[in-house]
Amino acid sequence: MIAMRKEIDVCLTPELVHLSDLKDKLVVVVDIFRATSCMVSGLASGVESITPVATVEECLSYREQGHICAGERGGKKIPEFDIGNSPFEYMDDQMRGRNIAVSTTNGTLAIKKSTDAAQIIIGSFLNLSAIADYVLSSEMDVVIHCAGWKGTFNLEDTTFAGALIDRVSDKYQFKTDASLMALSLWQLANSDLYQFLLKSAHAERLKKFGIEEDLKFCSELDHFNIVPILNGKKITVS
Amino acid sequence: MIAMRKEIDVCLTPELVHLSDLKDKLVVVVDIFRATSCMVSGLASGVESITPVATVEECLSYREQGHICAGERGGKKIPEFDIGNSPFEYMDDQMRGRNIAVSTTNGTLAIKKSTDAAQIIIGSFLNLSAIADYVLSSEMDVVIHCAGWKGTFNLEDTTFAGALIDRVSDKYQFKTDASLMALSLWQLANSDLYQFLLKSAHAERLKKFGIEEDLKFCSELDHFNIVPILNGKKITVS
Repeated sequence: MIAMRKEIDVCLTPELVHLSDLKDKLVVVVDIFRATSCMVSGLASGVESITPVATVEECLSYREQGHICAGERGGKKIPEFDIGNSPFEYMDDQMRGRNIAVSTTNGTLAIKKSTDAAQIIIGSFLNLSAIADYVLSSEMDVVIHCAGWKGTFNLEDTTFAGALIDRVSDKYQFKTDASLMALSLWQLANSDLYQFLLKSAHAERLKKFGIEEDLKFCSELDHFNIVPILNGKKITVS
Repeated sequence: MIAMRKEIDVCLTPELVHLSDLKDKLVVVVDIFRATSCMVSGLASGVESITPVATVEECLSYREQGHICAGERGGKKIPEFDIGNSPFEYMDDQMRGRNIAVSTTNGTLAIKKSTDAAQIIIGSFLNLSAIADYVLSSEMDVVIHCAGWKGTFNLEDTTFAGALIDRVSDKYQFKTDASLMALSLWQLANSDLYQFLLKSAHAERLKKFGIEEDLKFCSELDHFNIVPILNGKKITVS
């Protein structure tokens, strides 16, 4: 009997997730600029847990339980919050051992819309190899859920999907053309990922806020060897 | 005063079209395998008009008015219909001067979902240069509306979007990353378009029906120098 290869698929934006059946699947959520890069950076640097929430009000309600409030709207820090959406803020010594509640434009929505999945893990270029190893050791079909930009496709999240597919493609078959396209983008990007991602519309928007260092850091591979997992409402590293 | 460059955008599937404001825009609808390739082939070969309709029943009701019924579901000819979804059927001598009503899985939906546009034109590789010239002479912003596959992204329609953007990019700025990605696909595809498109999931599905000749023909550039335009319910060549 020939073993069936597992399937991998890419959901290009949360706006298309109703077309993917996430039940029994392993979902990798990705929002490179910058939500999931922040989560990985923080959890790898001693943050205790990260709770994604939909609204500013919900986030502030966690402060009463001792949480740090983090997040952005349209790329900018929310005035009432403690920190914005930079991986360097998440790696600050003062965040060690703290619980963070976070609300962002796109990334937290992608997590919220993935809850039918068997398991949700948090991907970024910063923990690419750890995610690839985790996927390879899983018995589940996989969907890479790109946060995109306000419902539309974005370059950086799909390029990450291509990078991950490139690492695991021997053990997975592609379910749709989105995987093939993502892999094509990665092939064009991988010789100079940062320069490739700088072409994206979102990088262009974010450059106006003077955060090139954030963009550069989020484009680096394998700084951290962790796999953040959503358990209930919290993302932690097991 | 610096003239503002017009904008071009790609809607990757009809499922995302609510995120594009089509008002006052020129929309290029594309369904390479095979609806729009058929329409272009037929109209360039003497078909009088093509009326896209949503359902089999609506299509059959046009037969009472003397129309040819054309279309497919899941890539296969609908049994009660006169012809299926092959460009060679549309180019048959018996179609000269005839009006065709057509219902297909994805292409006719993309047309129906574009009706907010100022103008809808029908694109394919077979009339790429004619479409590019038309776009260049237009004063409108442009959205390339890819029919996709049952709501999801597909390779062939987005690669066409990239080919068209490549021809007109001097005069247009990209609205979102979808344009950049489409252009990347075209750069990978253009040295051997047919081989590139054969990798697509839809080509894989269609090969099972033994229609490689259709796929090959639909991957050829500039067979026809026409721009089909939707006028009311009918697509015609002015």
